[in-house]
Amino acid sequence: MQPVMTGDEVMALLDREFPQIHAGGRVYAIDSIAPDEAVVRFTANDLHLRPGGTVSGPSLMALADLAAYVVILAHIGPVALAVTTNLNINFLRKPGPGDLLSTCRLLKLGKRLAVVDCGIAAEGDEDLAAHATATYSVPPR
Amino acid sequence: MQPVMTGDEVMALLDREFPQIHAGGRVYAIDSIAPDEAVVRFTANDLHLRPGGTVSGPSLMALADLAAYVVILAHIGPVALAVTTNLNINFLRKPGPGDLLSTCRLLKLGKRLAVVDCGIAAEGDEDLAAHATATYSVPPR
Amino acid sequence: MQPVMTGDEVMALLDREFPQIHAGGRVYAIDSIAPDEAVVRFTANDLHLRPGGTVSGPSLMALADLAAYVVILAHIGPVALAVTTNLNINFLRKPGPGDLLSTCRLLKLGKRLAVVDCGIAAEGDEDLAAHATATYSVPPR
Amino acid sequence: MQPVMTGDEVMALLDREFPQIHAGGRVYAIDSIAPDEAVVRFTANDLHLRPGGTVSGPSLMALADLAAYVVILAHIGPVALAVTTNLNINFLRKPGPGDLLSTCRLLKLGKRLAVVDCGIAAEGDEDLAAHATATYSVPPR
Repeated sequence: MQPVMTGDEVMALLDREFPQIHAGGRVYAIDSIAPDEAVVRFTANDLHLRPGGTVSGPSLMALADLAAYVVILAHIGPVALAVTTNLNINFLRKPGPGDLLSTCRLLKLGKRLAVVDCGIAAEGDEDLAAHATATYSVPPR
Repeated sequence: MQPVMTGDEVMALLDREFPQIHAGGRVYAIDSIAPDEAVVRFTANDLHLRPGGTVSGPSLMALADLAAYVVILAHIGPVALAVTTNLNINFLRKPGPGDLLSTCRLLKLGKRLAVVDCGIAAEGDEDLAAHATATYSVPPR
Repeated sequence: MQPVMTGDEVMALLDREFPQIHAGGRVYAIDSIAPDEAVVRFTANDLHLRPGGTVSGPSLMALADLAAYVVILAHIGPVALAVTTNLNINFLRKPGPGDLLSTCRLLKLGKRLAVVDCGIAAEGDEDLAAHATATYSVPPR
Repeated sequence: MQPVMTGDEVMALLDREFPQIHAGGRVYAIDSIAPDEAVVRFTANDLHLRPGGTVSGPSLMALADLAAYVVILAHIGPVALAVTTNLNINFLRKPGPGDLLSTCRLLKLGKRLAVVDCGIAAEGDEDLAAHATATYSVPPR
């Protein structure tokens, strides 16, 4: 499926509608939007780290949820009303140092539900740190 | 199963090992620990709210994850090494105003895995705002 | 919420619409329907057992899915069109001998989605053998 | 990761240890084993169909669970003791006619847990009918 918004357009919408995601500092960026796919970059700061310098589980969940929203918005257009109904995440291994990339792929974009598959890995790392699937309820279009 | 730590003891451990959970202000408190159960209270601040005053999905996921950790710790004792391996959450309805309570129940406390069921509701509200199940890998005991 | 169908009415609908569930022998019965709840009984036969006499994982998943459908049907009435969109199951311990009971509770019965919590245990057993949550897409009512 | 068993070897082990999976007729075949991956073919018969000729949800769950087991066995060798601890499945769309292929990929093969991602689609179909993630507890090696 072809996206209908660019990464800049999606980020502008997030900035306007959900300024809180930047409350602790600007940590999210949209790296790319492609057919059925989006990549969101996360630059953790001290708020997101656990002892030993590992990114916390809730930070990974927030990243998966946001990146899933990004790929959906990019393909349905600027409607702020999509809401998460389910998120399932498996934590696989501690990510290596550096930025994390969440690569999300639309598995389904239906009339009522969108289902997204998200892998999270440290940049340049082949092994996933976490894998999530998320379902969003989407407004009738 | 009988708990082996009190709420104060668990919170002292969290304060020591995971001070980051209080980084944006002190929002979590342990209301009660009972056999197989723990209740964690969450007082959202502006960082956790979405447009319209709703608590954000990531805040609910973080609450479920923390409350699951609390009930496990309370029953296995002061080991910081339990790590989440899976979390599944269903977002059910917008919570009413006021504090949220996450009531977690041990479904299993095995040699390697602990599985927890968590309901999240606004205080005094019968209907759940969210329901999660979480699995933690626990150290050999 | 009050149910609008009895157990006999739900079973009659299943017999008519989904005769295949009885293909390997009649193994499911509806024990009870109550507000927000249903209990489905499963009497495993050789087809459902694994080495050592344990009920297989797929049999437990099928039981959870069916029991979730039963509690939804009982509360929305005789529409065959509800379909599972998500099922998450944790396998907790080998069930003891005898019938299994799946106790399902409506967490939400919305306009578009119903979410159900199901515990599965051997009859008379306090510990769950498995715990599932299921989401069904329900027709507009 | 390199597999250590061929498809024929895995199927021989299944035939010996889990003959029940063929009880209603021989419906599963292993199409291929590759590094980190396995493809299992499912030829539904009348037992697996719902009104309208759709493959039932429980049949898809059983297929995902079996195919996840196949990819794990192929990579850890002939130990029958791996057991499913969690399975999460999203039902995406009715599959087209013909055989279903479940393509499973190892996301993690750890000391205690293996996590697998499975897509299920009708042969020749690009769109997934269902997507599952499964966690198995694996014996120490």
